[in-house]
Amino acid sequence: MKTVVLSGGVGAARFLTGLVQVMDPRDITVISNTGDDCEFYGLRVCPDIDTVIYSLAGMANPQTGWGLMGDSFQALKELKALGCETWFQLGDRDLATHIWRTMMLRQGQSLSQVTRTLARLRGLELTILPMSDQPVHTVLETEIGRLPFQEYMVKHRFQLAVKHICFEGCDQALPAPGVLEAIADAKRIIIAPSNPYVSIGTILAVPGIRQALEQATGKVAAISPIVGGNAVKGPAARMLSDFGQPVSPLGVAQIYQSFLDLMIVDEKDQALLPEIRAMGIEAVSTQTMMTSLQAKITLAKQVLEFMQ
Amino acid sequence: MKTVVLSGGVGAARFLTGLVQVMDPRDITVISNTGDDCEFYGLRVCPDIDTVIYSLAGMANPQTGWGLMGDSFQALKELKALGCETWFQLGDRDLATHIWRTMMLRQGQSLSQVTRTLARLRGLELTILPMSDQPVHTVLETEIGRLPFQEYMVKHRFQLAVKHICFEGCDQALPAPGVLEAIADAKRIIIAPSNPYVSIGTILAVPGIRQALEQATGKVAAISPIVGGNAVKGPAARMLSDFGQPVSPLGVAQIYQSFLDLMIVDEKDQALLPEIRAMGIEAVSTQTMMTSLQAKITLAKQVLEFMQ
Repeated sequence: MKTVVLSGGVGAARFLTGLVQVMDPRDITVISNTGDDCEFYGLRVCPDIDTVIYSLAGMANPQTGWGLMGDSFQALKELKALGCETWFQLGDRDLATHIWRTMMLRQGQSLSQVTRTLARLRGLELTILPMSDQPVHTVLETEIGRLPFQEYMVKHRFQLAVKHICFEGCDQALPAPGVLEAIADAKRIIIAPSNPYVSIGTILAVPGIRQALEQATGKVAAISPIVGGNAVKGPAARMLSDFGQPVSPLGVAQIYQSFLDLMIVDEKDQALLPEIRAMGIEAVSTQTMMTSLQAKITLAKQVLEFMQ
Repeated sequence: MKTVVLSGGVGAARFLTGLVQVMDPRDITVISNTGDDCEFYGLRVCPDIDTVIYSLAGMANPQTGWGLMGDSFQALKELKALGCETWFQLGDRDLATHIWRTMMLRQGQSLSQVTRTLARLRGLELTILPMSDQPVHTVLETEIGRLPFQEYMVKHRFQLAVKHICFEGCDQALPAPGVLEAIADAKRIIIAPSNPYVSIGTILAVPGIRQALEQATGKVAAISPIVGGNAVKGPAARMLSDFGQPVSPLGVAQIYQSFLDLMIVDEKDQALLPEIRAMGIEAVSTQTMMTSLQAKITLAKQVLEFMQ
C-alpha cells in the first residue's frame, strides 16, 4: 500500500525505523526537508536526508540521533587548526558522505539522483526524495538578526526568539521529480513527528506540494511532535509560542488544517482530542514516545491501523 | 643569503628539514613540483607541497615520508563503502588539508595564495611556491598504456616500463608569481635529491624556468637522488634505465647539464667524480643518505659549504 512520509530529521527517522518493520519498505516514499542543507568547507551537507539514511541503515549515533555511531573527529580538529569554524560536528565517516555527495553533484547529478544512489549504497529499499532539487535555504529572523538554520539550531542551540522564517529560493524551487506523483499515488500520507515550521513547513513551502496534499486522494495523518506542551526534540514548542500558537497538537493541527484528515497525539494530550475534532480533523491518542525499537514498531503499527 | 630549492616530495622534504636548521628559513624559497597533483573525490591533492609542509611542520609520518603521523583512515573506509577507489591513502587529518585547499581554490584563490596561507598556518617561515598556478598533469606512457602519475606511482607501485613522459597542460602553464624572480635573485639554487624526470623535470618543463636557471647568477647545485646505482626512493633509477641513461649521478648530471654548476654525489659514487667534471660540472662527494635529523642537518651544512 503506497505510503508517503513527509520527513524532517531525528523524529521522522525514529518513526521510519518502526515503519519499515511493519510494511514493505518498497512501498514507502520519504519526502525529505532540504531547507536545513548547508555547505561546510565547500561540502554539501543534507542533515535530514542523512539522519534518515543513517538511522535506517543502523549507522546512526543512538545518543544524538544524528551523525554516525562511533565516529571520530580527526579531520574536524585539523580544519580547526586551519582556522575553520567547527561548531557543526562532522565526523570523519560522516565527512565521507558529504565528500561523496559533493563530488556527485559537481559531476552534474541532481540531488534526487545522488540521494537515490546513496540510499541504495546503504542498503535501503524505500525511496527517499529531497523535497526539491533546487536549493532552498531556511533562514530565521531572530532577536539577534537573520541566521541560516544551522547557525540558529546548532551554533545557538535554538535559544533565540524567532520573529519570522524565510525559505530562501523557495519561489524558484520545483518539487523534485516524483514528489507530486508520490503524493497523488499514495494511499496513505503520514506527516512525521517533525517540526511543523522548519521541517514540514519547508516542504509545504515548495510550490505545488501543499496543493498536492490538499488534493490527495490518500488519507493524510500527522503525528504530533509536541507532547504535553513540549517538543520531543528541538525548537518546535518555542516556535509555536513565538508565533502565538497553542504549544500543543492543536497548534500543529492548525498548520496542517487545509489537508489533514487525522491527528495522532500522545496519551498525555488526550484532553485535546475534542478540540481537534471540532476543527473537522479526526483525532486519536496513543503512546507516541519512541524510546525503543519496540516503541517505534508499535507506534508505526498503530498509525497504520488508525489510518485504515 | 637568498636560496632557492627545486623540490619534489620525500627526498626534498628530508633535505629541507636539514636546511631550515642551518640557515634563516625566511631566505629559502621552495619551488615545488605540482605535476603529481590530482583530484580524489573532487578534492585537490598536492602530494609534493604537502609532503614538504608536513615534514617541515613536524607532522609527517616518519615511516612513509608522506601523509601524517598517526593519521586514521575512517573517511577513506567509508568512501570505499560508497564504491570509491581508495588506492591512494588519504588519512582523516590529511583530508582536512585537501578539503580546505579545495574550498579556497573554489573561492577563487590561486594555488600560490593557498599554498602560502597553508605554510603560514602550519607555522613555516620559508616560502613555498608551486611551480605554476595552472594545472600540469604528469602522464606516463607505460607498457600498459597512458597513466596519470599517481596511478603509475601508487596504484602500480612504479613497476612498469616507461616509454615517454608527458606534462599535459605544460604549454599553457606560466611559472607561478615569484618563481622566475626567486631564481633570478637567488645566490644559491639547490636541486633537491628528487626524481630528475617526474619531480624536477616537471618544474623544468614549465616554460621559462629552465631558461631562468640557465641565466641565473646564483650558483646551481644538485644533490644526486641516485646512490650506488639505485634510487634512494621511487622510480628514478628505473626511469634512467628505461630512457637509456646511466643509472648514476652521471645520468642525472646530463639532464641538468645546461644549468648545473655543481653535482653533489654520495661517497659510494666517488669514482664518478672525474666523469662529471669532464662534463664541465664541478663535483664533490659526501654522505648523502638522510637517515636521521642529524644526517639531514650535516648534509645541508655541507651543501652550503660546497656552494661557497
